[in-house]
Amino acid sequence: MPPFSLPAAAGPWPRAILIDLAGVLHVGNQAIPGAVEALGRLRATGIPLRFLTNTTRSPRSALVRLLQGLGFDIQPEELRTAVQATCQLVKDQGLHPYYLVHPDIREEVGPDGEDPDAVVLGDAGAYFSFDAMNKAFRLIMAGHPFIAMARNRYFQEADGLTLDLGGFVAALECGAGVAAEVAGKPAALFFLSPLQELGVPPGEAVLIGDDWRDDVLGAQSLGIPGILVKTGKYRPGDETRMSPAPAKVVADFPGAVDYLLSLMQVKA
Amino acid sequence: MPPFSLPAAAGPWPRAILIDLAGVLHVGNQAIPGAVEALGRLRATGIPLRFLTNTTRSPRSALVRLLQGLGFDIQPEELRTAVQATCQLVKDQGLHPYYLVHPDIREEVGPDGEDPDAVVLGDAGAYFSFDAMNKAFRLIMAGHPFIAMARNRYFQEADGLTLDLGGFVAALECGAGVAAEVAGKPAALFFLSPLQELGVPPGEAVLIGDDWRDDVLGAQSLGIPGILVKTGKYRPGDETRMSPAPAKVVADFPGAVDYLLSLMQVKA
Repeated sequence: MPPFSLPAAAGPWPRAILIDLAGVLHVGNQAIPGAVEALGRLRATGIPLRFLTNTTRSPRSALVRLLQGLGFDIQPEELRTAVQATCQLVKDQGLHPYYLVHPDIREEVGPDGEDPDAVVLGDAGAYFSFDAMNKAFRLIMAGHPFIAMARNRYFQEADGLTLDLGGFVAALECGAGVAAEVAGKPAALFFLSPLQELGVPPGEAVLIGDDWRDDVLGAQSLGIPGILVKTGKYRPGDETRMSPAPAKVVADFPGAVDYLLSLMQVKA
Repeated sequence: MPPFSLPAAAGPWPRAILIDLAGVLHVGNQAIPGAVEALGRLRATGIPLRFLTNTTRSPRSALVRLLQGLGFDIQPEELRTAVQATCQLVKDQGLHPYYLVHPDIREEVGPDGEDPDAVVLGDAGAYFSFDAMNKAFRLIMAGHPFIAMARNRYFQEADGLTLDLGGFVAALECGAGVAAEVAGKPAALFFLSPLQELGVPPGEAVLIGDDWRDDVLGAQSLGIPGILVKTGKYRPGDETRMSPAPAKVVADFPGAVDYLLSLMQVKA
């Protein structure tokens, strides 16, 4: 199958850009080389940007602080996190969950329900103990809803790839024989609600991500062209694992910005 | 689809009986009521018995001690464990694994390879820490073989259902995007090798188990009729989750023995 097509029509395009954070703008507490300056060039176009992250080990405030500390021009209101999306889901459904999450995001999600009627999983990292997993398992087996903040499989850390919460979601799904409801990427609403707020149809937006599955495939399945960067969790051949292929594959975030700017000049 | 058919031919039948342990003969350190006496009645027929267990938290010697202590007439050489099957697999393939297993079976598997070239997962229970899981994940991502002693989803403990290693196998499979090689049930060899030793074809044996998937479906897919007992991890409706349905569904192990003895009388 040919790659996902970029729209052919001339005119102001794209009208919004969705950007993944970890692996695209930074890895751990290191900015991707050239990314700060590239974001500046993208800012100069005036196109609205939204930053989407499935990172669920750090609170929103810490993410903003980290990115701004690395020199990125990002405003808190432009950041959409899977934790935020989960809290909205819990509120909409009137649930009082048991949260198997990292202590750093406890303040953002609030206390556990006294008599929990749901299970919420975040990337608890070192806090994924057997006892916590078994508690979640028993609640799910009792018929309570199971919400996963995301289902990312792994992420890049300074010393190597690290298991993300996806495996632990799969563990409970396998154990209990149910499917989790995912709040972050690749949930449709997580991509579409920032676009709805901006009044931009999916085909007139573009996404930049390092995760072929949760970023690029997720976006493209909704009609949002995806640009895959070869940084972060990218592994050689990732672009061949999805169909249709990414709209574009580039070396890194600066390469994605160069590409988008070149298209804008052609279209202008 | 109709239930799995028992052989119609008259004659000495069955010629071997495969019996699951946990959930069938006992739950934790309690014998299933009537099971000790029922095993005695089965013994009286002189039919060879083999006991197959996917329990990987306890060493072989402790399992024999537990069962004999509960009054069961079981000889050590009749017991086939997933740990044993795993050790055979590791030896056959010349591997030096990192073992993510319960400390109680460490003596049985031996020390970790100094520079591990494989990952072996047992039911580590409380020892399923994030660090151990991440170590296993990185070895598998580096291309090393991944062997699971079993992939049972849960088992019955005195205080409720408990996550077995299956979920943690799924976690690593999901994270690393690979499939584990399973050594215990429902691996074909685990059912077939005791029958081969006895010289009994699959269709002339019968299995008694409480796990519709790993016991009964596993056996029936090899041509061994399966009897599902409604004790241990059995949940209402389990018999409808598999196709063809179990050859027979009974209340418990004594019920299974009554059923087999009644068939033998008819056939005699």
